[in-house]
Amino acid sequence: MYLTHGLHRSRQQRPDEAATVFGDRRQTWRTLVDRVARLAGGLVSLGIVPGDRVAIIALNRDRYIEAFYATAWAGGVIVPGNTRWAFAEHVYALTDAGARFLLVDAGFASLIEPLRKACPNLWVIIYLDDGEAPSGAFAVEDLIASFTPIEDQCSRDDSLAGIFYTGGTTGHPKGVMLSHRNMLSSCFYSLASLRFSDRSVYLHAAPMFHVGDVGLTLTITMIGGVHVVIPSFSPEAAVRAIVGEGVTDLLLVPTMFGMLHQYLLTQTADLSAVKNVIYGAAPITETLLKKAMQIFPKAAFYQGYGQTELAPGATLLMPEFHLPSAHGWSYLRSAGRAMVGVDIKIVDETMGERPRGEVGEVAVRSDGVMLGYWGKPELTRQTIVGGWVRTGDAGYMDEAGFLFLVDRMKDMIVSGGENVFSAEVENALSSHADVLECAVIGVPDDRWGERVHAIVRLRRGGIGDADKLIAHCRTLIAGYKVPRTIEFWDQPLPLSAAGKVLKRELRKPYWP
Amino acid sequence: MYLTHGLHRSRQQRPDEAATVFGDRRQTWRTLVDRVARLAGGLVSLGIVPGDRVAIIALNRDRYIEAFYATAWAGGVIVPGNTRWAFAEHVYALTDAGARFLLVDAGFASLIEPLRKACPNLWVIIYLDDGEAPSGAFAVEDLIASFTPIEDQCSRDDSLAGIFYTGGTTGHPKGVMLSHRNMLSSCFYSLASLRFSDRSVYLHAAPMFHVGDVGLTLTITMIGGVHVVIPSFSPEAAVRAIVGEGVTDLLLVPTMFGMLHQYLLTQTADLSAVKNVIYGAAPITETLLKKAMQIFPKAAFYQGYGQTELAPGATLLMPEFHLPSAHGWSYLRSAGRAMVGVDIKIVDETMGERPRGEVGEVAVRSDGVMLGYWGKPELTRQTIVGGWVRTGDAGYMDEAGFLFLVDRMKDMIVSGGENVFSAEVENALSSHADVLECAVIGVPDDRWGERVHAIVRLRRGGIGDADKLIAHCRTLIAGYKVPRTIEFWDQPLPLSAAGKVLKRELRKPYWP
Repeated sequence: MYLTHGLHRSRQQRPDEAATVFGDRRQTWRTLVDRVARLAGGLVSLGIVPGDRVAIIALNRDRYIEAFYATAWAGGVIVPGNTRWAFAEHVYALTDAGARFLLVDAGFASLIEPLRKACPNLWVIIYLDDGEAPSGAFAVEDLIASFTPIEDQCSRDDSLAGIFYTGGTTGHPKGVMLSHRNMLSSCFYSLASLRFSDRSVYLHAAPMFHVGDVGLTLTITMIGGVHVVIPSFSPEAAVRAIVGEGVTDLLLVPTMFGMLHQYLLTQTADLSAVKNVIYGAAPITETLLKKAMQIFPKAAFYQGYGQTELAPGATLLMPEFHLPSAHGWSYLRSAGRAMVGVDIKIVDETMGERPRGEVGEVAVRSDGVMLGYWGKPELTRQTIVGGWVRTGDAGYMDEAGFLFLVDRMKDMIVSGGENVFSAEVENALSSHADVLECAVIGVPDDRWGERVHAIVRLRRGGIGDADKLIAHCRTLIAGYKVPRTIEFWDQPLPLSAAGKVLKRELRKPYWP
Repeated sequence: MYLTHGLHRSRQQRPDEAATVFGDRRQTWRTLVDRVARLAGGLVSLGIVPGDRVAIIALNRDRYIEAFYATAWAGGVIVPGNTRWAFAEHVYALTDAGARFLLVDAGFASLIEPLRKACPNLWVIIYLDDGEAPSGAFAVEDLIASFTPIEDQCSRDDSLAGIFYTGGTTGHPKGVMLSHRNMLSSCFYSLASLRFSDRSVYLHAAPMFHVGDVGLTLTITMIGGVHVVIPSFSPEAAVRAIVGEGVTDLLLVPTMFGMLHQYLLTQTADLSAVKNVIYGAAPITETLLKKAMQIFPKAAFYQGYGQTELAPGATLLMPEFHLPSAHGWSYLRSAGRAMVGVDIKIVDETMGERPRGEVGEVAVRSDGVMLGYWGKPELTRQTIVGGWVRTGDAGYMDEAGFLFLVDRMKDMIVSGGENVFSAEVENALSSHADVLECAVIGVPDDRWGERVHAIVRLRRGGIGDADKLIAHCRTLIAGYKVPRTIEFWDQPLPLSAAGKVLKRELRKPYWP
């Protein structure tokens, strides 16, 4: 198994068919692979040696795909930077990974000089955009024009292919080391259940630095589908690309459904070409799902759960469980069941398996399990135990193997000695008609240790009546779980790049 | 990756749903896994140690699936025996593999004593059938009743999981060593393109000792489908099972289509539940495909090409290429294109890649590539070169990556210094209305070295006129390829267990 396998396969089977579409620019597989092999030749000439770390800081673009594959083709290790990071965070990741190569697009060109000063390990900087490169950087187009294609170095199997920094919602970033096998195994787990084919047209709506989109990049290349690329998600850009290119497959986070729905209240667009919608990072509510089904009337919906440490796939909630059953819509709150190829169990602190229905930590074993955290052997030993990843997520499993996540272990609120899982409280609040979005955190409390506190953004016309919402929750969940205080916000809650609410930000005002 | 993964997954997700159906006996996943874990306990108590070879000689049955998985669960290595072997061939394989354990069903019970005498390495013999065991054998049901389930030994990844003796059509049997990863990788390559799901109902029509059916055993278990088992293929048994159980998926060889068609001339049966028909071992003719489409009106057809050394998948001809295109039916003669995950190239004798359209040897690289031939390191070195398997098959690839097999390299006839690929001659003969089946071989000839010789079985009412058939061929292929002699047979041609014509048998009367 090697990351560039799909390039060879698609060039062999469909050399003159579309590989990438970015704005008005369309490229065939023959062209794409030729450019990758030339850029790899450029990297080798500039001194890359197998195992060298190559960082990228760029918005989505076809050149990103080329840079990603050229790194693998040359035997390098990709280090995707999060485009929302602050400067200090970029410096941290580049330094921690010991990156020798860096590619940046025009939007991040201003970082070139400061990063070169701050990161003495940086050796070569490449400008990943059209036009002339800023001083101190090589232009990617010059490299591709100047160098001849080299043979694929075929770094493979268990060798390191990428380091992915997990922002997560808490703590210091960690570099997750993924091998070629890790990433491709996860692709095959998806392919076993999802209905991709060589007629798939995939929209890169999620950021390419995210391991979820990386998995789809590899998958679409292997099966010979088309990559449609927009720089970043906006409802306008997504709708235009879907309609214009006949997009069939999408990876979204639930918040994007809401944004699309809002946009389409005033626009008409036929999105019925979309066949598969994969969403992740958070479960979907019944209300939001119904909106999503209006937006994509012909689509099958898949919820995926995983994490970077798993490259990333763990469970899938299949389309048939997005429909009401004898149990109502109860499966919607589930993350689904173990993907083909993945072992899942709920464990206690000593890795013993918990009985069905009881909450514990979700543990996962598969060929996607990371090699470890870069430079953090102790943390690796704590996280991978006997081949199983301790995900840090709390959940339980029902009798049919459905996984229900109750919260991040570290997001758990301990109030009056009771464990409160914020997701449960959020579900209760969300079910009230006035609530548009909400987040529940623990805040310091003299009496209870931590107090359950909610931040609520109301729908237009909704009434900010804390007592009423508290009474509503009281009808749904145990008293100790009910929010004791509620604050009302006008603006949207802060989100991570992956679309998760940044609870760390919400906690800041309350904790030293 | 480990062979028993699917057992754990299906028990977790559908404990009380059907796992196996054999005649009137239906078993759930809970029961199946319990029996496997108990039988594994029995094997351990009888002295199995990790890596021990466990042979099975039995017709298809649900107990075969249990024995297969129990061996893996106990850390053993499965050695499936070909049920059509002569006694001497069984002795050869059991001795060569150094099998310590042997399971046989009632049909092969008479082999127990002679095999014990002939194979001193045999330690434990288990009777894989209901009722009392013959003297000198343990009854499988006693073992399952007597022992408690043990923990899965989780032998995995690159460790040896099975030794599969390739009969092939020429030469001495070789033991192909396949690892856990080899076999499961091949499953994932299939899952990436075939439309299996947890609603799949698979009929084991092909023999379970064949690596193709083993792949489906693993796949269906992983996805949680149902195994419907008949002891061996007959049109009656297959049709009864398909109708009775609503079979959705089938693996057949083309000769079975003809048998089914013949049978259904006098029977009516609704086989429209069948959604996917995979066929292999030989390409299909347009005439036979049309019959197959009448038999299975709702099915998508997939041709698979591979070999035991690849565990076994290499290429797939997808359903859309089973329809007439702008080029007529030309793709029907193709074996399809490289599966997702598989690299294929056409090479010359020094492993250099041949240009598109030119015939050479088919070379394949994937995670399915065998560990090697058991006890034959020199043959292994000749067969696996730089990670690529030299398949021994001759073929060419077109500009869209379609593989066209022209013949087994070793089946090639050299006549008057020209290479004649028998498949091409057989295609020409088959296109004549009077020909029901045929095979072309080389026979000794004083003038030409080898002479192209055909064996033909006529349709009812067909006329055995050699001159007419030769004239017909002459209109289709070059003169040196046309059969110089033809013999007419009344009885069917001898077939291998995999449904290929046994040319070795046909050659016997002509060669010393």
